[in-house]
Amino acid sequence: MVSAMAQDDYARRMERAGLAAAQAGLAGLIVAPGPDLVWLCGYRPTAVTERLTALVIEPGRAARLLVPVLERPDAERAPGAGALEVAGWSDGADPYVELGKWLAPHRRYGVSDGMWALHLLGLQRTVPGGGYAALTEAVPMLRAVKDAYEVARLAAAGAAADATYEDILGVRFGGRRESDVAADLARLLVEHGHSQVDFTVVGSGPNGANPHHEAGDRVIEDGDMVVLDFGGLKDGYGSDTTRTVHVGEPGAEERKVHGIVREAQQAAFEAVRPGIACQEIDRVARRVIKAAGYGEYFIHRTGHGIGVTTHEPPYMVEGEHLPLVPGMCFSIEPGIYLPGRFGVRIEDIVVCTESGGLRLNGTERALAVVA
Amino acid sequence: MVSAMAQDDYARRMERAGLAAAQAGLAGLIVAPGPDLVWLCGYRPTAVTERLTALVIEPGRAARLLVPVLERPDAERAPGAGALEVAGWSDGADPYVELGKWLAPHRRYGVSDGMWALHLLGLQRTVPGGGYAALTEAVPMLRAVKDAYEVARLAAAGAAADATYEDILGVRFGGRRESDVAADLARLLVEHGHSQVDFTVVGSGPNGANPHHEAGDRVIEDGDMVVLDFGGLKDGYGSDTTRTVHVGEPGAEERKVHGIVREAQQAAFEAVRPGIACQEIDRVARRVIKAAGYGEYFIHRTGHGIGVTTHEPPYMVEGEHLPLVPGMCFSIEPGIYLPGRFGVRIEDIVVCTESGGLRLNGTERALAVVA
Repeated sequence: MVSAMAQDDYARRMERAGLAAAQAGLAGLIVAPGPDLVWLCGYRPTAVTERLTALVIEPGRAARLLVPVLERPDAERAPGAGALEVAGWSDGADPYVELGKWLAPHRRYGVSDGMWALHLLGLQRTVPGGGYAALTEAVPMLRAVKDAYEVARLAAAGAAADATYEDILGVRFGGRRESDVAADLARLLVEHGHSQVDFTVVGSGPNGANPHHEAGDRVIEDGDMVVLDFGGLKDGYGSDTTRTVHVGEPGAEERKVHGIVREAQQAAFEAVRPGIACQEIDRVARRVIKAAGYGEYFIHRTGHGIGVTTHEPPYMVEGEHLPLVPGMCFSIEPGIYLPGRFGVRIEDIVVCTESGGLRLNGTERALAVVA
Repeated sequence: MVSAMAQDDYARRMERAGLAAAQAGLAGLIVAPGPDLVWLCGYRPTAVTERLTALVIEPGRAARLLVPVLERPDAERAPGAGALEVAGWSDGADPYVELGKWLAPHRRYGVSDGMWALHLLGLQRTVPGGGYAALTEAVPMLRAVKDAYEVARLAAAGAAADATYEDILGVRFGGRRESDVAADLARLLVEHGHSQVDFTVVGSGPNGANPHHEAGDRVIEDGDMVVLDFGGLKDGYGSDTTRTVHVGEPGAEERKVHGIVREAQQAAFEAVRPGIACQEIDRVARRVIKAAGYGEYFIHRTGHGIGVTTHEPPYMVEGEHLPLVPGMCFSIEPGIYLPGRFGVRIEDIVVCTESGGLRLNGTERALAVVA
């Protein structure tokens, strides 16, 4: 059992964020509701709305949180609130003017990727200053490199997703709708400790060839390939794993395509080591699939980071020159999608350690036969 | 039964949006995933992510939707997609460059309030052009003025919320936790046709004095005032109503405070007519509460618009000079919050018609006694 984050842990994260901002040449960070805010101080407003909520982090001074005065009692109960100065603004006041009083007038600030355009435009109008940069572009390493606490949380989420996969192998597939199996996955994720289910992809037969197909009314048939991609949050950290199963005995082409994807996934995993560029992980997987003649059917990047969200930097994609650093956690999930026929994807969460990659998902990657 | 929106209905909305943009001096609108996108073309991506999805609307030409190529099949199945040109961009490409090819280089565009800062910054960097404006500031009337279809949907959502309130009066309050009653509210909203529950506030005793308190572990006691504020989406449109009830017979002060709030809500409702500024609705409610000596305890604006979201323009707040227009739908929800003691709020959704306000909630506003 991993203990919960304490106020001091949040204080250290905020201090680290301030230093990272300074190193990136920023005066500080302006953090909006969402994963950055939860990660830095544990505060999750009941709703993200047109009313401005913003955490301002600057190196060498206490972090300050501006909230609608209505929501101040909630903000003050956040687990990291004791390490913050909390101020409220009232309906009718101009929150950008209020926030602007905290900002250095001619300096550049990082802002949360998910900050509303309404709020960024309000800031740009009121405090044009030195400009604003997206947090993941300005300080890409900040949330991307996980500490031991976070790796432990991600490992626990991965283990729960693994247990879900083991259980789903025992349910009936043939004759049931994709949405029925998706409901099973959701129930199992919760049974295994997830507080939130983010996605339960069940792509059977031709639906598996659409990588973002969720689950529909299609009745799964004997002879179908079925892509299962599921995950959510457990104790605040994400899980995301994919296995492709077959209803009844697979044919030769299905075995072959599955084998290519498995080989690509293994090769990309073995390429993980500190210093290698993210795009190299993508290239390694793509090379295997291309060499087998299926290059045009691998139509997405190889992976994405994971932490307090299930999609975040670093991205394993062509053009991403960021080097892997010990503590980075991300998916490796190559696939082959044959339009109108079937799809195959295999995905594990991997942490980069000093000595190479370590999988946080441990279930069998061979093509499982289900009923 | 109101029939679903057809492709032509979406086409008309998009045409109207293009004209509104032109009238506001904009070259067009850039619409991000979220309520604007759903409202304009019925498309709701499975997740809002770092991958750019944007609908570009310009007067006098067909709307164009740029999506991650992965999500193109989903986008093409959206109910309004037939009235759109859909284009995909692939992982590794620069989506801002792709989108920029569609934009007039030196013109100003409106952007969705909820567009991610990451995407707005990407656009500002790639197409600095004439700048960007928040959609609700540039074309505040666009979604704020509802047509007959939308008013009918909101009325149906209001009726379902009313049925929920009627049912909740029959459940046990005393001796149960707030969260238990909140679960009852959520269940009832779904039973009465809601597809999504957005909030179920149960603020008992002192918790009622925090207007944004949701529901907690506090056990409701005999003699408690209880604020019930609940709503969600039914057939794509929002409900939001508040009633304050009392467990057992209320005392004199509780009756008095409730009566003041009821009087304020009634006065604000009666002030609704085309042409009156939104801030006047707020002032009317505030005047009643101030005259009764409780001005300092009414700590939020009087109301907010409602449509495909439960919080949108127009806002009934000091400083909002926008005049009411027939078809605007919004809440009127004054309250009095006595710290450490109790709170009272009464809220109805009201539509502005040619001849004045019409309530879309019809349940009794008198202080109900529950068990």
